Amino acid sequence: MSAHDAAGGAAGAATPPAPGRALAAEVDLLAALAYGELTGFLHLAQDAAGAPTVPDRAALGALAVAEFEHYRLLRDGLQALGADPTAAMEPFAPAVDSYHERTAPSDWLEGLVKAYVGQGIATDFYREVAALVGAPTRELVHRVLADAGDADPIVDAVRQAIRDEPRVAGRLALWARRLVGEALSQAQRVAADREALSAVLVEGGEGAPGADLVELGRMFNRITEAHVRRMQRLGLTA
Amino acid sequence: MSAHDAAGGAAGAATPPAPGRALAAEVDLLAALAYGELTGFLHLAQDAAGAPTVPDRAALGALAVAEFEHYRLLRDGLQALGADPTAAMEPFAPAVDSYHERTAPSDWLEGLVKAYVGQGIATDFYREVAALVGAPTRELVHRVLADAGDADPIVDAVRQAIRDEPRVAGRLALWARRLVGEALSQAQRVAADREALSAVLVEGGEGAPGADLVELGRMFNRITEAHVRRMQRLGLTA
Repeated sequence: MSAHDAAGGAAGAATPPAPGRALAAEVDLLAALAYGELTGFLHLAQDAAGAPTVPDRAALGALAVAEFEHYRLLRDGLQALGADPTAAMEPFAPAVDSYHERTAPSDWLEGLVKAYVGQGIATDFYREVAALVGAPTRELVHRVLADAGDADPIVDAVRQAIRDEPRVAGRLALWARRLVGEALSQAQRVAADREALSAVLVEGGEGAPGADLVELGRMFNRITEAHVRRMQRLGLTA
Repeated sequence: MSAHDAAGGAAGAATPPAPGRALAAEVDLLAALAYGELTGFLHLAQDAAGAPTVPDRAALGALAVAEFEHYRLLRDGLQALGADPTAAMEPFAPAVDSYHERTAPSDWLEGLVKAYVGQGIATDFYREVAALVGAPTRELVHRVLADAGDADPIVDAVRQAIRDEPRVAGRLALWARRLVGEALSQAQRVAADREALSAVLVEGGEGAPGADLVELGRMFNRITEAHVRRMQRLGLTA
C-alpha cells in the first residue's frame, strides 16, 4: 500500500469528474487496466484449457473469470467518467498485446508463473498509480485489485513441480525475469505515449498529490519487494 | 418448459439425498452439466480471443464467464449431494471433449453459431432431464440454466454477417446441422454408458415421475422446435 492511500479525501463520490488532464489521466488509468484485464482473461482462459487436470483447469479458470469481473467494473467506471470504453482502451492495445505475444508460455508451468508473477506486478503498479488520482477512481481501482482470485492453487502447483523436478526452478526463475523485463519495457512504452498518465505520476491528479522523484523511487522499491516475496513464495530465486 | 416442471414437490431442500439409483442419476445429471459448462467456458473463451473487435471479445467473454459461474453452482450442488465433483465429472469427459474436437469452429462466425445453437440445445436437453429428478437438484439445474448470459450480441453479429454476404447463410446452416448431429451422437454415447441417467428418463427419480415413450417423443419435439426458433432468429434454415 502506498503512503498516499489515505490522502486526497477532498474528492467524494458526488464530485464531478476532474477537468482536463487529470480526467484524461484517470480515463487512461482505468482504460489501461480494463484492456489488461480483458486480455489477461482471454490468455488465462487459454492457459486453463491447457491445464493437465480438471481441477487445474477449474482453478485457473476461476482466476480468469476474476479478471473478467474486473474488466466489467472498469468498463462501468469508464462510462461513469463519460468515456467510451472501447475508444479509451484502444491506445493500450499495442503495449498489452505485445507483452502477451512476447511472453507466450511454452508450457503449463510457465503459464502458472506468468499468471502469478506477471499479474502480481501489474496489480502492484496499478495500485500505486491509483494512489495518485482522485478518490472515486482510486477507490474503484483498489476495489478491483483487492479481489484477485485465489492464487493458492497456482503456488501449490509450482512448488509441487519444483519438488518433483528441482531443476525446473532455474528455468522458471529465468522465465519470471523475462516477464518482468517485458512488463517494464511495455510500461515505458505506455509512459512515453500517454502524457496525461505520466504527468499525473509526478504532478498529481485531482485531490491527490503527485509523486516526487524520491517517492517514485520508493514506489519502485515497494513493487520490487513485493515481486521478490512472490518469487520466494513460489520457491524461485528473484 | 416440460409438463413435469410442476410435479414432484414432495422433496424439499431439507430432504436427504435420494438413495441408490435416483441419487446416482442426479449426480450424473449435475456432473455432465458441470463438465459441459467448464469445457464450454474454456472453448468460448478461446473463441472470444479470436473475435475481430474488442467489443466482440467482451461480449463472447461475458457468455464464457456465465458458463463458468454455472460450473461453480453445479460443483457446489455435487458436493451437497455428497459427490466428489472431479470424480463425478470424469465419465462425461470423453463425450463432451469429442463433441468439441469434432466441432472446432473454423472461424469466428462458426464459433458464434456454435455458442448459440449448441448451447441452446444442450440447455433445453438438461432442462428436460431436470424435470424428471427430485426438487433440489431440479431447482439447481433450472437456476443455472435460467441465466444463460446475453445472446443478443451473437444474434446481431450473425445476422449482420449474413446481410453483408448472403451466401454465408448456407455454410452456417450446414454447420449448425453438423453441431446438432454431433451433439445427438455424443448424447447417445452418454445414454448408453450411464444406466442410472437413462433409467431416470423412463422410470423417474425421487419425487418425480418418469417419462413414458409418448412423453419422450414430446420432449424431443420441444427440443427440436426450440432449435428451429433459434435458427430462424439467426436468419438460418434449420
